[in-house]
Amino acid sequence: MLALSKRAISIITATKKISCISSMASTTEQTLRETLASKLSAVEIQANTVRSLKASSAPKPDIDAAVQALNALKLEKSSIEKSLQSLLSGSDSREAFRQSVVNTLERRLFYIPSFKIYRGVAGLYDYGPPGCAVKSNVLSFWRQHFVLEENMLEVDCPCVTPEVVLKASGHVEKFTDLMVKDEKTGTCYRADHLLKDYCNDKLQKDLTLSPDKAAELKHVLTMLDDFSSQQLGAKIKDYAITAPETKNPLSDPYPFNLMFQTSIGPSGVAPGFMRPETAQGIFVNFKDLYYYNGNKLPFAAAQIGQAFRNEISPRQGLLRVREFTLAEIEHFVDPDDKSHPKYAEVADLEFFMFPRDEQASGQSAKKLRLGEAVSKGIVNNETLGYFIGRVYLFLTRLGIDKDRLRFRQHLANEMAHYAADCWDAEIECSYGWIECVGIADRSAYDLRAHSEKSGVPLVAHEKFSEPKEVEKLVITPIKKELGLAFKGNQKKVVEALEAMKEKEALDMKAALESKGEVDFEVCTLGKTVTINKNMVTIHKEIKKEHQRVFTPSVIEPSFGIGRIIYCLYEHTFYTRASKAGDEQLNVFRFPSLVAPIKCTVFPLVQNQKYEDVAKLISKSLTAAGISHKIDITGTSIGKRYARTDELGVPFAVTVDSTTSVTIRERDSKDQVRVDVEKAASVIREVSEGQRTWEDVWSTFPHHSSTTTDD
Amino acid sequence: MLALSKRAISIITATKKISCISSMASTTEQTLRETLASKLSAVEIQANTVRSLKASSAPKPDIDAAVQALNALKLEKSSIEKSLQSLLSGSDSREAFRQSVVNTLERRLFYIPSFKIYRGVAGLYDYGPPGCAVKSNVLSFWRQHFVLEENMLEVDCPCVTPEVVLKASGHVEKFTDLMVKDEKTGTCYRADHLLKDYCNDKLQKDLTLSPDKAAELKHVLTMLDDFSSQQLGAKIKDYAITAPETKNPLSDPYPFNLMFQTSIGPSGVAPGFMRPETAQGIFVNFKDLYYYNGNKLPFAAAQIGQAFRNEISPRQGLLRVREFTLAEIEHFVDPDDKSHPKYAEVADLEFFMFPRDEQASGQSAKKLRLGEAVSKGIVNNETLGYFIGRVYLFLTRLGIDKDRLRFRQHLANEMAHYAADCWDAEIECSYGWIECVGIADRSAYDLRAHSEKSGVPLVAHEKFSEPKEVEKLVITPIKKELGLAFKGNQKKVVEALEAMKEKEALDMKAALESKGEVDFEVCTLGKTVTINKNMVTIHKEIKKEHQRVFTPSVIEPSFGIGRIIYCLYEHTFYTRASKAGDEQLNVFRFPSLVAPIKCTVFPLVQNQKYEDVAKLISKSLTAAGISHKIDITGTSIGKRYARTDELGVPFAVTVDSTTSVTIRERDSKDQVRVDVEKAASVIREVSEGQRTWEDVWSTFPHHSSTTTDD
Repeated sequence: MLALSKRAISIITATKKISCISSMASTTEQTLRETLASKLSAVEIQANTVRSLKASSAPKPDIDAAVQALNALKLEKSSIEKSLQSLLSGSDSREAFRQSVVNTLERRLFYIPSFKIYRGVAGLYDYGPPGCAVKSNVLSFWRQHFVLEENMLEVDCPCVTPEVVLKASGHVEKFTDLMVKDEKTGTCYRADHLLKDYCNDKLQKDLTLSPDKAAELKHVLTMLDDFSSQQLGAKIKDYAITAPETKNPLSDPYPFNLMFQTSIGPSGVAPGFMRPETAQGIFVNFKDLYYYNGNKLPFAAAQIGQAFRNEISPRQGLLRVREFTLAEIEHFVDPDDKSHPKYAEVADLEFFMFPRDEQASGQSAKKLRLGEAVSKGIVNNETLGYFIGRVYLFLTRLGIDKDRLRFRQHLANEMAHYAADCWDAEIECSYGWIECVGIADRSAYDLRAHSEKSGVPLVAHEKFSEPKEVEKLVITPIKKELGLAFKGNQKKVVEALEAMKEKEALDMKAALESKGEVDFEVCTLGKTVTINKNMVTIHKEIKKEHQRVFTPSVIEPSFGIGRIIYCLYEHTFYTRASKAGDEQLNVFRFPSLVAPIKCTVFPLVQNQKYEDVAKLISKSLTAAGISHKIDITGTSIGKRYARTDELGVPFAVTVDSTTSVTIRERDSKDQVRVDVEKAASVIREVSEGQRTWEDVWSTFPHHSSTTTDD
Repeated sequence: MLALSKRAISIITATKKISCISSMASTTEQTLRETLASKLSAVEIQANTVRSLKASSAPKPDIDAAVQALNALKLEKSSIEKSLQSLLSGSDSREAFRQSVVNTLERRLFYIPSFKIYRGVAGLYDYGPPGCAVKSNVLSFWRQHFVLEENMLEVDCPCVTPEVVLKASGHVEKFTDLMVKDEKTGTCYRADHLLKDYCNDKLQKDLTLSPDKAAELKHVLTMLDDFSSQQLGAKIKDYAITAPETKNPLSDPYPFNLMFQTSIGPSGVAPGFMRPETAQGIFVNFKDLYYYNGNKLPFAAAQIGQAFRNEISPRQGLLRVREFTLAEIEHFVDPDDKSHPKYAEVADLEFFMFPRDEQASGQSAKKLRLGEAVSKGIVNNETLGYFIGRVYLFLTRLGIDKDRLRFRQHLANEMAHYAADCWDAEIECSYGWIECVGIADRSAYDLRAHSEKSGVPLVAHEKFSEPKEVEKLVITPIKKELGLAFKGNQKKVVEALEAMKEKEALDMKAALESKGEVDFEVCTLGKTVTINKNMVTIHKEIKKEHQRVFTPSVIEPSFGIGRIIYCLYEHTFYTRASKAGDEQLNVFRFPSLVAPIKCTVFPLVQNQKYEDVAKLISKSLTAAGISHKIDITGTSIGKRYARTDELGVPFAVTVDSTTSVTIRERDSKDQVRVDVEKAASVIREVSEGQRTWEDVWSTFPHHSSTTTDD
């Protein structure tokens, strides 16, 4: 289950699953730490030797030899320290990379810290113009790839949600994180964050850490998600962790509900929350949607919308935010038949999967054919497998690097007790492996929870082609006898008899047959009465049933759109030297599908005729719905290319004559000559994916001019 | 200004502007009421005559004649009553129409009351599958028509907003409605609603209402929006209005803030609100957006997103809701130059406009050429006019009936003091004339408010091509003299001198020149001091300036998407008799652009070959991104057409052979024969607007089969 849509039982554990497992590096690190530790003690012993030689005024050559040996040991020690540091500082280079991506994103307004002129609010970000376009493209493609292709029923429900709905879903009780407070200033922190920071800091910076201690801290990091409030509190005490800014002592951890609370209506007596996920809006509409679908299973409903999470102390930039866009699918299916008609279309896909067993035995993710994973039972069922495949296709078509994408199965302790199976699509970025899509078979849990709370049955019906015979237990209280025996209490005794469960009734039947009477506790009377064999008949009957009534299972792919977009930024970012070689230029290698702007149109020089041509092409592009930018500033063409490369614009049209223009592709920097009249339609075809650049390249004359490229 | 985005000064008045002005009906009503009143008194007089004749035992023929005259008068009276009733019951037929639209919408899940299984929450609605598709189509077209065509900078900001932003915008203080409480139960009501209901009820149902009283109540209805809390309270007392359900007395009206309040972060000390409009997110980003646009004006930013309003007692179904989608544009422009480069493209449009003067003089809206309205100064400036024209094109292309659309100018008392001009696009539906888009020239108000509160200048620069000479006043305090005279107070006197406004300084200069000294009040010292001519020099200097720094004006078109969609439902709904004539069938005449599903594909009879053809066509449609529905149920073709007409599906493909199919258009019910291979591309072209149905009709052979239509 996606942390972004954590619910019910697994709520506490699920939010924290942004883990960074790098088992390969781990072995080397262990060896280095061990060598360093032994070298350190060798240095100490040798230093003592030198000291005692000096104290005992030993002969100078002896002392000199000992000092030389000490210096040699120190050199070896510092060389090992350097190796260890460089190993650990992998995170430094990751951070440097992230910094250059983030700098470009902020400078080009892909995002803006919200309410910046008022110094912002942690965990809230705006999408600026190019970011907003990328988001809108990702959502359009999501609609095409899932809603349209699968004929899903899309709904759009409000964010404001009354308390009763989120009580039924379990969010009011369990949607919490553990928090500690600075005992003097009252500043709040997430308890697990402080412990995690402590461990990471020690591991990365304390080179004198003993291998045992390092192993312990690593174990803590692995177990962090499973720690109870008490366990977290104990560790914080053990390690004497204090408030980061003030070094004041910290309170014990206690749960903080992550929902933004509000009040609906003017009376102040109707509590409400900003939804923490979009799924509940679908579940409560199940009955209507099932009817809309002609009372047929399976079907899927989908929703795209804002969700809210009042994080205690948001970190990790765009990955952990207080308001975000979710796209969720709830696929309702007969629990007895989880096959999928289009399963064959994805069965042959091969990609990195990280099943439970591989995780437990310390192996890493491996390439698996999806069909094999399903047939071997690694993936629980075809429908779940189908969605895993569709998610893989969705992400890679957006531009996510398939080698930095894996599907990780939840461990038994991560999963809710009712869940049949859960897989997360995790994408690797500078923050580690990030859970971006959760794909969970949640069985009947959600529909049952809302059925119980609302009293409205959320069930499906399977009509049998011919009636089936079913054995049923029939309990018939003999009201006349019961009336004589219990007078005014008769009604309550009758109700209690009728309410007996099958086993209880069969036990009574046996007792009545053998002993003629039996003691029977009537809760509503608060006492035990004696029932004799004239008072009730109990027997089994064969009944014909015409349909089966059941609660559907739900398979839920849940997409954290902002996280996917952030990872996409990292996966598509690269730098290349400018032509003069004097600076590094930034490029986003966005596929045309997600590029915020598909094309820029430049007159090569400032010139009315060229400008007119540019405007003509621009007009055709607008009519075709192709987002583009016209740039008539006098800046050098190289600079203009660099500017648009940084926005990930895939194509540029340079107007350098009134009859034909140059079209340039961003990554190859290849250029072709195309007639003015054809330019807009070539751009449309190549940016809508009806034509590849390779095809354009092989169709039109090539162009190579030093004046028109950087 | 759109009620949906009410702000600052005009906040109180603006929410209530769902008015239903029908001045034509009004004259007739007045006459009828007057005739009825005179007839009633004639009846009374005649009845008295009869009574006194009887009492005085007058001759029978006299009595009979008097009774006959009385009966004749009664007949006339009841005939006038009937006319008046039928005039007033215009609202009944409107309600009946609305009921049939709303029934269809609910039954086909265009919308669903949110959280229905928990008995819902007033003012919250879900968009079900077809409604969600319509909304998504409307928003796509909005993006194409505004963002893409105008190269706007689209942003996407969070809904959760810190208090400081909404304090600056005026919402914390002024975004209120007046509320009264049932003094015994505490139930809350909107004060103006109760008064409005009272007046409407009296006017519609009380036929004995004197013309004077009727005129008074109508005046109250007109003035409702301008009533202060005291005035509203007085009227409620005057008319002895009580709580509708309980008839209990009501409290005095008091303001209730309509924002949903919440708290950001875990400490509970950072209040926040769910944004009441999306505009503020744009204003606070002005500086970055201006930079993104190359520091050039004019430019527009746009945002689509959820907004929230905790209505006191939501009514009017889908029109007055607690959460809704807004699409807002903020066009930033030099206050000294509000021309628009594309103005000529809309200047010749002609549509209903309702200028201030026509409203004041009791006339109705009239057709005006936009260019004339601008050149005559009825519309304040070209840019405002341009957006009015673009909004007209947007709404009519969606399917809004141009004869039930008018642009109403705000009256002086509706407009904020800083606003230059405001026009609402109002659409007539069964609730009356509904404000759906507000188009306001808000001058520099919003940017100034945020500049002041944040301390960050939100300004634009105009570089002069050559420096301009500007006369500036220079005040130079002579510190030595001032020090001698005022010692420790010298600094404060200097500051006070430097802070003088131009007029004050010039007055001082004159006084010093004539009298040699002058009294001068220094606020920071709390006293008046004497300044002599040795203490300060004041003179004018010519300075060269290289640029002009100014706060841009903002022109804001603000779209209530849900309201537009609801009006569209009413404007496109009609019924027609079924072929058998035994029932009325519902149809939504959606243009293909907004239709939730563009096409249905039916095999004429259940048959594997036909099903295969249907699936083939479906596959091509999916690939082309055309939303469609395949229906292989065995239902009669007539019923299947009726079902899809009710969803507003414009085209249907009936597979009745394996080589060619029948394509039917919804409104004309015309049918053509098209080859199987061409079917999908014809549907694509005609539903994407590249081809008209008329063209299809004239290209392909016609089909008229009684088996394939209702």
